[in-house]
Amino acid sequence: MAPTKKVSLRAELRTTQFNIWIHSDPSGAGILERLDAGELVIGDGGFVFALEKRGYVKAGPWTPEAAAEHPEAVRQLHREFLRAGSNVMQTFTFYASDDKLENRGHTQRFTGQQINEAACDLAREVANEGDALVAGGVSQTPSYLSCKSADDVKAIFKKQIDVFVQKNVDFLIAEYFEHVEEAEWAVQVLKTSGKPVAATLCIGPEGDLNGISPGDCAVRLVKAGAKIVGVNCHFDPETCVKTVKLMKEGVEKAGLKAHYMSQPLAYHTPDCNRQGFIDLPEFPFSLEPRILTRWDMQKYAREAFNAGIRYIGGCCGFEPYHIRAVAEELAPERGLLPPGSEKHGTWGSGLDMHTKPWVRARARRDYWEKLKPASGRPFSPAMSAPDSWGVTKGHADLMQQKEATSQEQLKVLFDRANKAQ
Amino acid sequence: MAPTKKVSLRAELRTTQFNIWIHSDPSGAGILERLDAGELVIGDGGFVFALEKRGYVKAGPWTPEAAAEHPEAVRQLHREFLRAGSNVMQTFTFYASDDKLENRGHTQRFTGQQINEAACDLAREVANEGDALVAGGVSQTPSYLSCKSADDVKAIFKKQIDVFVQKNVDFLIAEYFEHVEEAEWAVQVLKTSGKPVAATLCIGPEGDLNGISPGDCAVRLVKAGAKIVGVNCHFDPETCVKTVKLMKEGVEKAGLKAHYMSQPLAYHTPDCNRQGFIDLPEFPFSLEPRILTRWDMQKYAREAFNAGIRYIGGCCGFEPYHIRAVAEELAPERGLLPPGSEKHGTWGSGLDMHTKPWVRARARRDYWEKLKPASGRPFSPAMSAPDSWGVTKGHADLMQQKEATSQEQLKVLFDRANKAQ
Amino acid sequence: MAPTKKVSLRAELRTTQFNIWIHSDPSGAGILERLDAGELVIGDGGFVFALEKRGYVKAGPWTPEAAAEHPEAVRQLHREFLRAGSNVMQTFTFYASDDKLENRGHTQRFTGQQINEAACDLAREVANEGDALVAGGVSQTPSYLSCKSADDVKAIFKKQIDVFVQKNVDFLIAEYFEHVEEAEWAVQVLKTSGKPVAATLCIGPEGDLNGISPGDCAVRLVKAGAKIVGVNCHFDPETCVKTVKLMKEGVEKAGLKAHYMSQPLAYHTPDCNRQGFIDLPEFPFSLEPRILTRWDMQKYAREAFNAGIRYIGGCCGFEPYHIRAVAEELAPERGLLPPGSEKHGTWGSGLDMHTKPWVRARARRDYWEKLKPASGRPFSPAMSAPDSWGVTKGHADLMQQKEATSQEQLKVLFDRANKAQ
Amino acid sequence: MAPTKKVSLRAELRTTQFNIWIHSDPSGAGILERLDAGELVIGDGGFVFALEKRGYVKAGPWTPEAAAEHPEAVRQLHREFLRAGSNVMQTFTFYASDDKLENRGHTQRFTGQQINEAACDLAREVANEGDALVAGGVSQTPSYLSCKSADDVKAIFKKQIDVFVQKNVDFLIAEYFEHVEEAEWAVQVLKTSGKPVAATLCIGPEGDLNGISPGDCAVRLVKAGAKIVGVNCHFDPETCVKTVKLMKEGVEKAGLKAHYMSQPLAYHTPDCNRQGFIDLPEFPFSLEPRILTRWDMQKYAREAFNAGIRYIGGCCGFEPYHIRAVAEELAPERGLLPPGSEKHGTWGSGLDMHTKPWVRARARRDYWEKLKPASGRPFSPAMSAPDSWGVTKGHADLMQQKEATSQEQLKVLFDRANKAQ
Repeated sequence: MAPTKKVSLRAELRTTQFNIWIHSDPSGAGILERLDAGELVIGDGGFVFALEKRGYVKAGPWTPEAAAEHPEAVRQLHREFLRAGSNVMQTFTFYASDDKLENRGHTQRFTGQQINEAACDLAREVANEGDALVAGGVSQTPSYLSCKSADDVKAIFKKQIDVFVQKNVDFLIAEYFEHVEEAEWAVQVLKTSGKPVAATLCIGPEGDLNGISPGDCAVRLVKAGAKIVGVNCHFDPETCVKTVKLMKEGVEKAGLKAHYMSQPLAYHTPDCNRQGFIDLPEFPFSLEPRILTRWDMQKYAREAFNAGIRYIGGCCGFEPYHIRAVAEELAPERGLLPPGSEKHGTWGSGLDMHTKPWVRARARRDYWEKLKPASGRPFSPAMSAPDSWGVTKGHADLMQQKEATSQEQLKVLFDRANKAQ
Repeated sequence: MAPTKKVSLRAELRTTQFNIWIHSDPSGAGILERLDAGELVIGDGGFVFALEKRGYVKAGPWTPEAAAEHPEAVRQLHREFLRAGSNVMQTFTFYASDDKLENRGHTQRFTGQQINEAACDLAREVANEGDALVAGGVSQTPSYLSCKSADDVKAIFKKQIDVFVQKNVDFLIAEYFEHVEEAEWAVQVLKTSGKPVAATLCIGPEGDLNGISPGDCAVRLVKAGAKIVGVNCHFDPETCVKTVKLMKEGVEKAGLKAHYMSQPLAYHTPDCNRQGFIDLPEFPFSLEPRILTRWDMQKYAREAFNAGIRYIGGCCGFEPYHIRAVAEELAPERGLLPPGSEKHGTWGSGLDMHTKPWVRARARRDYWEKLKPASGRPFSPAMSAPDSWGVTKGHADLMQQKEATSQEQLKVLFDRANKAQ
Repeated sequence: MAPTKKVSLRAELRTTQFNIWIHSDPSGAGILERLDAGELVIGDGGFVFALEKRGYVKAGPWTPEAAAEHPEAVRQLHREFLRAGSNVMQTFTFYASDDKLENRGHTQRFTGQQINEAACDLAREVANEGDALVAGGVSQTPSYLSCKSADDVKAIFKKQIDVFVQKNVDFLIAEYFEHVEEAEWAVQVLKTSGKPVAATLCIGPEGDLNGISPGDCAVRLVKAGAKIVGVNCHFDPETCVKTVKLMKEGVEKAGLKAHYMSQPLAYHTPDCNRQGFIDLPEFPFSLEPRILTRWDMQKYAREAFNAGIRYIGGCCGFEPYHIRAVAEELAPERGLLPPGSEKHGTWGSGLDMHTKPWVRARARRDYWEKLKPASGRPFSPAMSAPDSWGVTKGHADLMQQKEATSQEQLKVLFDRANKAQ
Repeated sequence: MAPTKKVSLRAELRTTQFNIWIHSDPSGAGILERLDAGELVIGDGGFVFALEKRGYVKAGPWTPEAAAEHPEAVRQLHREFLRAGSNVMQTFTFYASDDKLENRGHTQRFTGQQINEAACDLAREVANEGDALVAGGVSQTPSYLSCKSADDVKAIFKKQIDVFVQKNVDFLIAEYFEHVEEAEWAVQVLKTSGKPVAATLCIGPEGDLNGISPGDCAVRLVKAGAKIVGVNCHFDPETCVKTVKLMKEGVEKAGLKAHYMSQPLAYHTPDCNRQGFIDLPEFPFSLEPRILTRWDMQKYAREAFNAGIRYIGGCCGFEPYHIRAVAEELAPERGLLPPGSEKHGTWGSGLDMHTKPWVRARARRDYWEKLKPASGRPFSPAMSAPDSWGVTKGHADLMQQKEATSQEQLKVLFDRANKAQ
C-alpha cells in the first residue's frame, strides 16, 4: 500500500487540474462512536459478485470458500475497497453457515469454521493498513427457508459468531434477510456478543416477503437490539434509499432511535417486484447492461446522505470504483478524498490529459451528469418482466435439500418456466 | 495458485451437474510453434480499463506506472487471467514510452525503464505458474501524432524493446495503432530483436485513420515482418472479427501467409464511426450499459474461431470472466477447461444449486442464449451519435504538448463540443 | 354506407379463413336502457386529433369549427367510427364554448352556436345510418381556469346545452375535466335538460388536479346527477381502466349506483405524472412512437370489460381501426362484428391471402399477442421525463387571456423551459 | 373545399404568430413541363394503408375495390392530400389487375375494369378542385412471381392502361416493382399510351431482388422509356433518398437524363434487409412505433430536395399531415403553403394558443427538431431482426395460387416460422 499524506481538501476542490489524494490517520473510534459523532461511514462493495467475475466464487451456491482457498484474491479486493475509501472491511463470510455450505449437492473442501476464521484474518490484516473497522457478517439460512425452529436457526448463527468473538471483530452485521423474523433471531444472537449490531434486510418499499412494511421491520429490528438498521442488496440505490426512508419514518414514529445504513446493488432495477433482482430474467449472468456508472453512484451517495443515512456502502455489482465515487461525492462532508482518487480526476477532470481534443472536451461535470448512456443493444428492451412465482418461506417449492438437484427435478422446473413466458 | 490436474474433458461435457477443472502441463512451445501446429492461443484482457476500475490507473493519461507502483494489483490481475485460461501474459507496458509518460502535464514518479522492467518481471512470475507465454508490448506514440520523423518514433520503440530483450520475453506485440504507417515502423524495430512479432491495429472495416483498407494494412504489416496480424481495441467483437476477415482476405489475395489474432473491446459498439469507441459520447466513464455478457463472449469466441482466427483474446472492458467464457466456448477444440471453470458451471449449470426454484430453471443453455438483456435504463437510448471531428495525424488539433492543458484551452474545447451537440 | 346483413357470429368464430360482417338492426333503445339491460356500448374515438392529422383542426386552440367549415370531413370520420362499431356519435363540439373560441388570439369565422348546431346535424345524419345514439358533449372552460364564478361557468355550459336540447340529442356527456368541481357544475347544468348525463374526468389514479381521489370524484359526480361516470383522455388504456376501477370502488363503498365508462388515449403513457400526456415532452407533435396497435386495443377492451366497464370507447389518438379492434375483441359478448370487419381478418387472419409465405405465417393470434414491436428509433429512449410545473387553477401562470400571446410572453416561457431541462 | 387565396409567403415567414394559407391557381402544365421547368412536384401518400385504418381495405390482399365500393371514403382521402399540398392524385388502382384480384381465394364483387374506371373518376374529380394532375398507376403482378411469360404479364398491364387512356389521365406510373425486369415490361407497355411514364421500384441500396444495383436498375428503366425514375414503398425516407441518389449516379454515369422521384414509407426501417419492411416482424399490424413524425418528414423533404429529387411524395404510412409537412418544408422553394396549413402553425407555432404555459413553451423549431421521442414501450426493443427466407421469383414458395390457402398449408408455414425464431 502506498504511503498516505494529509493534505488540505481545499486545494483539491479549487482546481480540477491537479488531483491530490488524502487519507486521515486511523481514528481508533468504534462504529457507534463514529456515527454518534455524526461522522460518515463508507461501507465496502459486494464480494460475492466481484469475486465471481474474478474467478473465485461459484454463481448458484455463492459460498465464500475463497477466503480459505484463494486468500490472495480476497486480500486484494479488500485492499481495493480500502483504497477506494471504505471504512469497514466486512469479513467475507456471506453464506458461510454449515447448512448453506452443504445445500443442494454443493460440496466443500473447507469447514465453515475454517472459512470464517480465514475471512476474519484477511479483513483485519487489510483494515490495519488504513482507517477501517472489521465487521463480522451473518446472513439468512436455508434452515429458516425449510421451516426449521427458531432454536435450530439461532444455533447456526451462534457457530459463526463464536468465531467472530474469538477473532475480536469490531462489530457485527446481520445482512441479507428476506424475512424480518429471521433477522430478529439473528440480532438476538449477535447481541449476546456484546458488540454493536447492525441489521439490514434485502427488501424494497413493499416490505419483507411476508408483506411486513419497512417501517414495521425497522422497529422490530431496533427492539431486538440493532443499533444500525437499513437495507442491502436486491434493489438499486434509488429504491434502497426510498426503503430506508420508510424505515426511518417507522422508527421515529415509534419513538425509537437508530442509525441508518444502505448497501444497495450496483444494478438499475426499475422493473423489480418485491423479490428484487433475483426475479429479473437477467439474474445473475446478464445483468451487465444495468451496471451503474460512477456518476449514478455519486447521485446515490448524495441522495442517501440527504435522507439521513450515515453508513453508506454497496452490495452485489459494486466494484472498487463505485465506492470511490461515493467517497468522492462525500469528500466535502468528510473533509478528505480516498487514496484511490490519486488515480481519478473528480467529475472526469483527468480527461484533460487525453490525446484527442474532443475527449478533453468531456472533462467537466455537466457533461457526465446529463449524459443518458446508450445501451449499444438495439435488440434489447429497457425493462424486463420479472418472474413472479409468488412463493416464500413455508411453500413446498422452497424446501431446501442436501442432495444435488436431480435431472428430473430440473426438467420440471424448465417446463414450468417455459410455460410462464 | 491451486494445483492443476489433468482430467478427460469428456466427463465434463457429459454432465452439467458437476464441473471439473482442468489444466494441461506447460508445453514449453513458443507462440509460432503453437500456431503453426494449429493450436488455439487465448489472449488476456485489457489491463488499463480493469485496473482503472480497481483504482490503479488514471483515465486520461492511461499510463501503466502501477507495474512499479502497485505490483500486487498487477500481479493479481495477471493471475486471474491465467486462471481464466489465458496462454499469454502481456507485459503491462501500454503507453509506457517516455514521450507518452510526459504528455500534457502528466507527471510520473517512475521512469519508462523502471515501469517496463517491473512489468516484465510480473508477467514472467505469473506465466511460470501455468502454461503461458510472456509478450512484450508497444503501442502508438504521441510523437507520431505530432508528426515527428520515422527515426524519432523508432527510437522510442527501441528503448522499450531493449528492456524486453534484456528480460527475455517470449515474443513481441505492436498493438493499438490507428495508422498503419506507424505500426510498420514499430514492426521494423521489433523485428530487430529476433523474436516473433505480432501486430494489431485498432481499426474497423473502414480501415485506418488515413482510409487504408484492412486488407492493405495487413499486407503491409506482413511485409514489414509481422507473423501474426489482426486488430485490438476500439470496436466490439463482431466488428473486430469482420475486420480481421478482411485482413485475411487481403493477405491471401496477395499470396502471403500469416496467423490472425483479435483482441476486441468488451463493449457493444454498433454505433461507432471509423474512430471507434473513443468517439462515443459514453467514452470512457459511462460505457457500463454496453458491457458484453459471458454469453456474448462465447458467441465471439465461436465466430472468431470460424473466421480462422487462432489467437483470440480481449482488450478494454474484458474482465477475467470474459476470457473464461472464451476458454469455455473453445473447450471442445482445446480439449481442456481453464482452472477458473472450477468456479463456473458451463452455460449457467451452476444455478442448479440456487435456493430459488425459478432461478434453478435458468440452469440451461437455451435460456441464456436467447435472452435479450434489458438495460434497466428507460430514459436511455439504444445507440449514440458519435463525435465526429474528423481530424487525424497532421491536424493542428492533434499536436501533443508536454504542458498541462490550460483552462483557456479547455474552455475552447467545451464551447466547441457544446455547439456540436 | 354499404348495406348490412345479419349473420350468425358462430360461423365467423369457427374459422379465421373467411370473415363475415354483421350488423344488428337499430335497436331504438336509449343509453340507459342499453346499459341497464347489461348491453355493451362502444364509444367513438377522438375527433380533435384525428382531424388534426387530416388537416381540419389546429393543434394549440384545438377548436371544432370544422363541423361548420368542412362538414364533409367530419361526416366521413363519423361514418368510419360507425362502420368500426361505435354505438355513439358524439357531437364534434369539444371546446366549442364561446370563451374558448376567443382564447389567446384565436379568431373564429363561426359562432359557437353555428358550430354546435352543425355538429349536431352531422352526428344525427350518420347515427341514422346505423345503430347509434347521438351524445352532445361539453368540456372544461378557460373561464374556470381563470377563476370565474360558478354562475359564469354554468352560463357557458347552458348556452351549449340549449342547442343540444333544440337538436334533440339522445344524451349528454360532460367530458375532459381536470377538476371535479367544474365537472359537478357541468353535470348540474346538463341535468336540467332532462336527458341522461354521463361525466368523465381526464384524471389518473392520483386523482384530479386538486388531489381529490378518483373514488371521491366519482361519488361527487353521481351525487350531482351523473348516471354514467368514468374517465377520458390524458392517460393510456391501462391507466384509465385502473382509474375507473378506483371510481367504481368509491361509488360502491358510498352505497351508490352508476354505470362506468372509459375513453382513454391511444398512446402509451407509462411515464406520465398527474397532469397526463399534456406534460410529456412529445405532446402533441411527436407522440407517434406511442400509438397503440390494434392488439393493444383488444387487450384494453378485455381489461375494461373485466373491470365492469360497459361503455368502452376512446379519445385522442384513436383511429377507426382502434375502435374496430375493441368491437372485434368484444364480438363474442355482443354477438356481432362491426361492418368494418368486412375488411379485417380477426387476429391477422387476412394475411393468409398475402403473397409472401413468411407473411402468411403471421396469420395467427399468438404471433401478434406476443410480439413486442420495435420502435425503429435507436436514438430514442423508452420513456420521457414529463414537464412538472406543478401549477393548476388559481395559479397566475394559468390565467387565460383573449389577446394573442405576445413575443415577450413567449420568450419568458422559452427561457423557463430551457432552464428546466 | 374552402376557397383559396393568393398571399405573399413573406408574411408567413416573418411571423410564427399568424399562419396564412395560400394556394396558387391551377397551372395547367403537365408533369414533364413542370419538372423540366425546375418546379417541385409533391406526390400524395399511400392509400392502401390509410384506408385499411379507416376500414375500407383488407390487409393481406390489399386490393382497391373501395374505389367502386365506398367512393366517399376514397374521395375524402384524395381531398385531404390535395389540401395537404399534393400536386398529383394517383388513381387508387394498386393491385387492381385481374390476376391479383383473384389471388389466394380473394373474391371480388367488382371487376378490375370497374375498379380502375371508378378510381380514375374519383382522382379527376378531386384534381379539378385544385392544382393537381391525375396519374394512372400499375404495380407488380402475381403472374410475374409465378413465372408467367413476358407476353402474359404485359397483357395484364395493357388491360389497366386501356382504362387510363380512355379516362385520359395526365401521366402514368409503374410503381412497386421488386424486380426491374417486370418494371421494364410495364414501362414498355405504358409507353405505348403516348403519355409520360414514371417508374419506381420498391428497392433499397442493395438493389432489386435479383441483386441488380439501383444504378443499373435506373438505367434500364430510362432506356425502356421512363422519363421519371425512383423508388417507392418498402423503406424509410432516409434509405429511399440514398437509393435514388445511387440511381441518379447510375443514370448520369451512363450519359442519360431523367427526373427523379421518391415515395418512401412513413415508417422508420433502420433494421430492414433487402426485402424491406415486409420482412420486419411488425409488418403490417404492429408498425405503429415506427411512424414518422411531421418533423421527421420535414427532414426527409429537405434531404430529398438536396439530393436533386423534384417529385417528392410518400407511400404506406403517409397520412395527409405527413404530406403537409413536406409542403411546409419546401414552402420557401415553392413560394406557397398548402391549404391545409390554414390549420397548422409551422414548426409548432400554433401551440402559442395552448392553455398551459409549458406547452406554449414548445412553440418553437429547435424544440421539435432536437426532441428524440420516447416510445412509451419499455418492454420493446429499438430494432427487430427481419425474417430472411431469402427466396424470390422463381422459388416454389412464391408460386401464387387462385385457391384459398388451406389450413394444412398454413400449418406448414406456422411451424417453419416458429423454428426460425
